[in-house]
Amino acid sequence: MSFSPGSLPRTGIGIDIHAFAPVEDAVPLWLAGLFWEGETGLSGHSDGDAVAHAAADALFSAAGVGDLGTHFGTDRPQYKGASGVRLLAEAARIVRAAGFEIGNVAVQFVGNRPKFSPRRLEAEAVLTAAAGAPVSVSATTSDALGFPGRGEGITALATALVIKTTTPVPER
Amino acid sequence: MSFSPGSLPRTGIGIDIHAFAPVEDAVPLWLAGLFWEGETGLSGHSDGDAVAHAAADALFSAAGVGDLGTHFGTDRPQYKGASGVRLLAEAARIVRAAGFEIGNVAVQFVGNRPKFSPRRLEAEAVLTAAAGAPVSVSATTSDALGFPGRGEGITALATALVIKTTTPVPER
Amino acid sequence: MSFSPGSLPRTGIGIDIHAFAPVEDAVPLWLAGLFWEGETGLSGHSDGDAVAHAAADALFSAAGVGDLGTHFGTDRPQYKGASGVRLLAEAARIVRAAGFEIGNVAVQFVGNRPKFSPRRLEAEAVLTAAAGAPVSVSATTSDALGFPGRGEGITALATALVIKTTTPVPER
Repeated sequence: MSFSPGSLPRTGIGIDIHAFAPVEDAVPLWLAGLFWEGETGLSGHSDGDAVAHAAADALFSAAGVGDLGTHFGTDRPQYKGASGVRLLAEAARIVRAAGFEIGNVAVQFVGNRPKFSPRRLEAEAVLTAAAGAPVSVSATTSDALGFPGRGEGITALATALVIKTTTPVPER
Repeated sequence: MSFSPGSLPRTGIGIDIHAFAPVEDAVPLWLAGLFWEGETGLSGHSDGDAVAHAAADALFSAAGVGDLGTHFGTDRPQYKGASGVRLLAEAARIVRAAGFEIGNVAVQFVGNRPKFSPRRLEAEAVLTAAAGAPVSVSATTSDALGFPGRGEGITALATALVIKTTTPVPER
Repeated sequence: MSFSPGSLPRTGIGIDIHAFAPVEDAVPLWLAGLFWEGETGLSGHSDGDAVAHAAADALFSAAGVGDLGTHFGTDRPQYKGASGVRLLAEAARIVRAAGFEIGNVAVQFVGNRPKFSPRRLEAEAVLTAAAGAPVSVSATTSDALGFPGRGEGITALATALVIKTTTPVPER
């Protein structure tokens, strides 16, 4: 892999917000690429994994190739119910096909639950494998403020760094 | 253009939030550098273009030269009603005058409307021309949560990457 | 200091939200590393300095070493009441010990008060000294929307750039 001489990496931003589904709907919780047993799930066209979705959107944003709606919107029924891990892997593939290498992705989510720290390394391993580049995940609460503080949903914010690749010069 | 040897690029963050103006005020909507016919506009000292404003703030943040208030505050009447495109172009000029080259700017906004995807490329072209560097724009909704979900306003988040330039060595 | 050949810097994200304490509690306000005389303070396990905390979280996020909870959680009583400046300095130490050099940190906060611009340079100097790398701070309001707009609390968002360092090759 070689990079354009003198080229700068590009940064991107991703935001994803999902509401918790009504308890009586018994939706499973998928977040940060993991299944969380016994937790109420998030709503969404896909599995509602706000962390994986924000990571994918940050990659698209850094590469300048649109967003989740562009690539996985409701007009693409093949993605209905798709896992966040699958969408992140597909986003990484699209960004690489557009000529970028991925440096890293970093995500932090705001929510009262699930209790994230015991499973952070597990989540990072799953998302890093999906993206083919380091993905870090961290968590915080909103000090009881706003919809995350009322337990109504989760906000995830992500940033990503990519760099334009050059066509490798074949060796003779 | 040359960069300081061994220097790292710098990253910045920008946030801008504007409320939709009351419908009866018949304020036009300007967002992401575009006019949106038939849509209720955003309030603000300038044109309320949260996307362009967040992009400008991310540039100021990366360069460490303050924020929109520092440069275009209400104590600067010449910017009253100024377009977001004009403020972004001026922000890019200020950042370059402070000795930085601009790598890219990436913005995502959260709002129920306008429907952004059909005009994404048009918006990116206008903002890229204003900044003189690639600006990507993406959009999402908040799953009906918070003020963006109630249709009360728009939140835009941006990140930018800049790098300190050196004084070019004149050729003999 | 030398960097791994061909290595890319890494970007990170940090979010911190604190509620203002009840006025009758007479909590002092610490924000962006500064004491704000006559202002109602923020609640928190530590001093509630959302700007310094978001900066620390962005550093942890960029390096992929967890978050504030990992390093300074309520199970670490030695950090109870610790200043944001102390936590940021400690975060920078942890990130360097993990093998990264810090490029810069950029923070923007959303809140109705305190009036930040007259003390921006002072805040940046204190936080830059704590991190041992440039920290920029900017501010905005939320146009009266959401909990920051109702004066209930402050949201701070940060991004950081770090790069993996190599073990210096000793000279012969």
